[in-house]
Amino acid sequence: MKDNDVNVLILMGSDSDLPIMNPAMDVLDEFGLSYRVEVTSAHRSPKRTSEVIRTAVEEGIKVIIVGAGAAAHLAGVVAAETTLPVIGVPIDSSSSPLKGIDALYSTVQMPRGVPVATMAIGSAGATNAAVLAVQILAISDDNLTEKLVDYKTKLEISVEEKSEKLKEKIKSRKR
Amino acid sequence: MKDNDVNVLILMGSDSDLPIMNPAMDVLDEFGLSYRVEVTSAHRSPKRTSEVIRTAVEEGIKVIIVGAGAAAHLAGVVAAETTLPVIGVPIDSSSSPLKGIDALYSTVQMPRGVPVATMAIGSAGATNAAVLAVQILAISDDNLTEKLVDYKTKLEISVEEKSEKLKEKIKSRKR
Amino acid sequence: MKDNDVNVLILMGSDSDLPIMNPAMDVLDEFGLSYRVEVTSAHRSPKRTSEVIRTAVEEGIKVIIVGAGAAAHLAGVVAAETTLPVIGVPIDSSSSPLKGIDALYSTVQMPRGVPVATMAIGSAGATNAAVLAVQILAISDDNLTEKLVDYKTKLEISVEEKSEKLKEKIKSRKR
Amino acid sequence: MKDNDVNVLILMGSDSDLPIMNPAMDVLDEFGLSYRVEVTSAHRSPKRTSEVIRTAVEEGIKVIIVGAGAAAHLAGVVAAETTLPVIGVPIDSSSSPLKGIDALYSTVQMPRGVPVATMAIGSAGATNAAVLAVQILAISDDNLTEKLVDYKTKLEISVEEKSEKLKEKIKSRKR
Amino acid sequence: MKDNDVNVLILMGSDSDLPIMNPAMDVLDEFGLSYRVEVTSAHRSPKRTSEVIRTAVEEGIKVIIVGAGAAAHLAGVVAAETTLPVIGVPIDSSSSPLKGIDALYSTVQMPRGVPVATMAIGSAGATNAAVLAVQILAISDDNLTEKLVDYKTKLEISVEEKSEKLKEKIKSRKR
Amino acid sequence: MKDNDVNVLILMGSDSDLPIMNPAMDVLDEFGLSYRVEVTSAHRSPKRTSEVIRTAVEEGIKVIIVGAGAAAHLAGVVAAETTLPVIGVPIDSSSSPLKGIDALYSTVQMPRGVPVATMAIGSAGATNAAVLAVQILAISDDNLTEKLVDYKTKLEISVEEKSEKLKEKIKSRKR
Amino acid sequence: MKDNDVNVLILMGSDSDLPIMNPAMDVLDEFGLSYRVEVTSAHRSPKRTSEVIRTAVEEGIKVIIVGAGAAAHLAGVVAAETTLPVIGVPIDSSSSPLKGIDALYSTVQMPRGVPVATMAIGSAGATNAAVLAVQILAISDDNLTEKLVDYKTKLEISVEEKSEKLKEKIKSRKR
Amino acid sequence: MKDNDVNVLILMGSDSDLPIMNPAMDVLDEFGLSYRVEVTSAHRSPKRTSEVIRTAVEEGIKVIIVGAGAAAHLAGVVAAETTLPVIGVPIDSSSSPLKGIDALYSTVQMPRGVPVATMAIGSAGATNAAVLAVQILAISDDNLTEKLVDYKTKLEISVEEKSEKLKEKIKSRKR
Repeated sequence: MKDNDVNVLILMGSDSDLPIMNPAMDVLDEFGLSYRVEVTSAHRSPKRTSEVIRTAVEEGIKVIIVGAGAAAHLAGVVAAETTLPVIGVPIDSSSSPLKGIDALYSTVQMPRGVPVATMAIGSAGATNAAVLAVQILAISDDNLTEKLVDYKTKLEISVEEKSEKLKEKIKSRKR
Repeated sequence: MKDNDVNVLILMGSDSDLPIMNPAMDVLDEFGLSYRVEVTSAHRSPKRTSEVIRTAVEEGIKVIIVGAGAAAHLAGVVAAETTLPVIGVPIDSSSSPLKGIDALYSTVQMPRGVPVATMAIGSAGATNAAVLAVQILAISDDNLTEKLVDYKTKLEISVEEKSEKLKEKIKSRKR
Repeated sequence: MKDNDVNVLILMGSDSDLPIMNPAMDVLDEFGLSYRVEVTSAHRSPKRTSEVIRTAVEEGIKVIIVGAGAAAHLAGVVAAETTLPVIGVPIDSSSSPLKGIDALYSTVQMPRGVPVATMAIGSAGATNAAVLAVQILAISDDNLTEKLVDYKTKLEISVEEKSEKLKEKIKSRKR
Repeated sequence: MKDNDVNVLILMGSDSDLPIMNPAMDVLDEFGLSYRVEVTSAHRSPKRTSEVIRTAVEEGIKVIIVGAGAAAHLAGVVAAETTLPVIGVPIDSSSSPLKGIDALYSTVQMPRGVPVATMAIGSAGATNAAVLAVQILAISDDNLTEKLVDYKTKLEISVEEKSEKLKEKIKSRKR
Repeated sequence: MKDNDVNVLILMGSDSDLPIMNPAMDVLDEFGLSYRVEVTSAHRSPKRTSEVIRTAVEEGIKVIIVGAGAAAHLAGVVAAETTLPVIGVPIDSSSSPLKGIDALYSTVQMPRGVPVATMAIGSAGATNAAVLAVQILAISDDNLTEKLVDYKTKLEISVEEKSEKLKEKIKSRKR
Repeated sequence: MKDNDVNVLILMGSDSDLPIMNPAMDVLDEFGLSYRVEVTSAHRSPKRTSEVIRTAVEEGIKVIIVGAGAAAHLAGVVAAETTLPVIGVPIDSSSSPLKGIDALYSTVQMPRGVPVATMAIGSAGATNAAVLAVQILAISDDNLTEKLVDYKTKLEISVEEKSEKLKEKIKSRKR
Repeated sequence: MKDNDVNVLILMGSDSDLPIMNPAMDVLDEFGLSYRVEVTSAHRSPKRTSEVIRTAVEEGIKVIIVGAGAAAHLAGVVAAETTLPVIGVPIDSSSSPLKGIDALYSTVQMPRGVPVATMAIGSAGATNAAVLAVQILAISDDNLTEKLVDYKTKLEISVEEKSEKLKEKIKSRKR
Repeated sequence: MKDNDVNVLILMGSDSDLPIMNPAMDVLDEFGLSYRVEVTSAHRSPKRTSEVIRTAVEEGIKVIIVGAGAAAHLAGVVAAETTLPVIGVPIDSSSSPLKGIDALYSTVQMPRGVPVATMAIGSAGATNAAVLAVQILAISDDNLTEKLVDYKTKLEISVEEKSEKLKEKIKSRKR
């Protein structure tokens, strides 16, 4: 796997989903992975969705990340058209009164034979979609595995730092 | 509209949905409407789904009824491919732990521009999907409107009969 | 069907529902359909509700759109009084702590024989109520069908435009 | 208030609701109150519903108990037509996948000005609907108040008896 | 019943519930009914709660309205200590993440024998608690019944006014 | 702390809760702790509830376990009357359509100052209520702490045994 | 138990949980109990979590309070590693679309043998976690029991004061 | 990747989860992949869980499937200890009153940096966990990709067969 290959395709149902999906790109940038981003809709542009998937498969993309809100059929529709791993991020758009529970159920409750790897609702899920994509690609790329080990260590260190910061805050509170 | 035209297409995600969707056919039979039934899946047979819709449109079908459970993307995927009215019945299959709430949210929370006319969860919804189909076709068919008025009268009479039956039961209870 | 006939009746439970129901009127305007709008309440003005329906039926209205929040009985009460297709929009008024889930359940869980075609909660549902009304009227109006095909094409193009816009944003983000 | 006046009207949406509503009649029998029972439906027999209410008001009925499941509009529709206290029992019919939550929300979330006194879902709610009816009638009937005090004492004694029974069971378990 | 008797006791779990419970007092003022208001807590002041109820019963209070949020045991605890009708308003305090659903379930799901007449969550429920109290008192007070009929007429007229206002808004929108 | 002191009081709202609460007694028996069991109801026998608590406190009981379903106010009412730790088990009685979610919310959402230590819904929660009672008593009883360490070891061993059993099953499946 | 022993360990999953967990420290300060606070994560720093628990047990800590949001595994993971009572506070972080219901279910639905004493969602739960910790420690510390009795009295008085304040507000409202 | 390498580790919280997890093994068998199965618990055997993961990583396992119910912390705890992709199946054990929603939320709502690829609740999720594992391994194994294409074709054909079967049933129904 060469570093400048595009390995990950990121789809979202609307450009208004970008603020929630941004962390996925941040993680892929951090791991030095190339990705392509498209807006497409299961319901408004079904043909475009099929074509985007077909093109992506031809280009050698390995993993597909899909963010979608409300009825959130996009991840399932993508999974129907490919044998690549599809990772779904249920989006809680500000305009959705059901707070992303609709999107979560739609994304995760897939029928036998057509899985969508579902992440947490919202931007934490977007971060984790990218981390899972890296974990999947790392299976055949020891370099990525090393980076994942470093990433895990950084997470651990950040917890220790937060703990120190917290203790400072509490001390000053007691005075 | 001739009586023997096929006006309604009924789709379901699995043949195991038949017991829940049966009342839809009963209603269409009662109103003397012809229909075609197909099993197709948004996720397992996406191409078949597109073809079934295209054929149906060519055959002059006017309304499409879709029953689907769990992630329940089928009604939405059908609505994406046609400008015909699509009626969705969320199915609470016995194997679904979420009791059809997942199917309800997936069917009803469609994005702007691509409606699915969503019915009650389960077989009451299947009955009503067919009644709504008749109501839609009745807009340009006075004969059907008359039948609908009769149907409504029958509903009203059945309530009165149930009330009499109930009073009998209660009387015998008191003795 | 003449263009200046009033084909659609839009009902809402309160004038405070107007901002949420506005998109329904926008869509009907876009398709050149005439409509009448009334505030009426299933609980505060039951007689007025009956009269509004009776008048509408006499005037030749073909489809009824109903927006209602909280207990949201209005769509069901309307469906009880007519054989016309009734489309329900569950409203998530800012003052409702249940966020429209109460209105959704009340609107969709109708008993056998009296369907309400239920749309998504909130203003997306209002848009789609009007699109469904157009789809229903289009069954006997080829002109409307053509407009629906154009509408669907516009939806598709808007997705492509959003995708281009998104790619621009991401490029500028990377610099 | 004479003992053989009919003071309470019990409505239910279907005769299949009888097993769940039976305890309401048991309680009214226990308190020596007369009642009338009718099946009527908000959606299938709206005119009958209006007439049943009008007749009941003319007959001097004081309190109305309504049991209804699923969309459960009946209690609200009744409350719209009378100034009498209306008590609602949300029914969890075996055929309802939403387990009475739909009926609960529909019954309790009434708009300002038109209350429904909502009870627990199912037969416990039916018992309590009748107890509340007695409490309401007792405001102007000291005889009923005395019976209510006795009823409360019996409840208390039954708890003590259950406690003794339980201790017996536990003793035998330990041996 | 003399006009200056205190007929209604209003309890709330905290003084912070006042903004939500205010509409109950507005309605009672509108109907010329006297009431007493107390803060008491099922959990923080159980003895005070018992005493408040005992005093109220001795003073001849006829109906008790209880507003409470979160675990919301207050209405049930009050109902345990009296045979008077108890009306419960589930409060969705801003600090409650469960948005009043916890309070609704706690208030409505009372066991057999001890009903709480449950109203809608929040201030609409507070309005209706007072309307129900008036309806209950009106059973033995024809003057109140007349006022209730007037109140219902006003509700109906306000709907018509809103409808006119709405039509004005829509007209100006179209220009 | 002597072994034959009664340290734990177990309360339940009804004798029908015994099958669900039995595991709590099994655990206390296993740890050699004495307990007293009473049926009492927050709503049907409020005075009895107060007396049971007062007696228990006088007898030197240290921890109170409360099982209750539906509105489930009992644990909260007990916590209001004592400074002892109160452990609540939400019961999902077969007759409760809300499956114990009502009982969970009622038990856990206690207001500031009056905690109830809430366990899992149903019999797993009953087991854990007793384990928590032992953990609380173990703070001042090293003997109990040792027994808890043994208990934890047994849990661990039982997992290993289950794993072996599982592998046997899978092997036989493959043949 | 000496006053300056550290008896309580407070853990939270992130330093951003501090505003919600602060009331726990306020209560412990009020009761004169010493505590230690650490940030640690079940998922980002599993080893650190184990070490923090081991150290705490060696230092003689008696009770552990854990605040965690979203998947909220921290309290369960801590309970897995110790026989001390573990008190869990489900956190409704502003970034969590599920409003703490996810954290509540994760914290309370522990399997047989490993209890977490679950408190209300959010800061009311943090207050109560500390009160429960005091109640647990008070079992072997009469001084703490006396303080708890005073605390309960203060709660009761604060309710009376709030009631007076409320009556003042209502009086001024009426003028 | 050699065919007889063990590539997948399947963990479950209890041997009673086997009937639900069986389909995962069926799929892996169908694709000719070797796997190892262990029972381990996040809460009852935390050390065993760590060791099972460490051993699996050393043995070269590539993907881990975890089935767990109720609080369902196991998948998260496993994800905390490895950089391998972890796939979670929320289990709706018959004894869980929350029907797997607790397990779903616990499994999917993971914090930033530690993803769990969450599948549908119950045995459909188990099937899909294995399919996703195959999809992940197929990224570096063209032979597996071919098998996945065949699998997708078989799914499609089975839909067509079901459709034929359904039409037969309906025909016989009409006679």
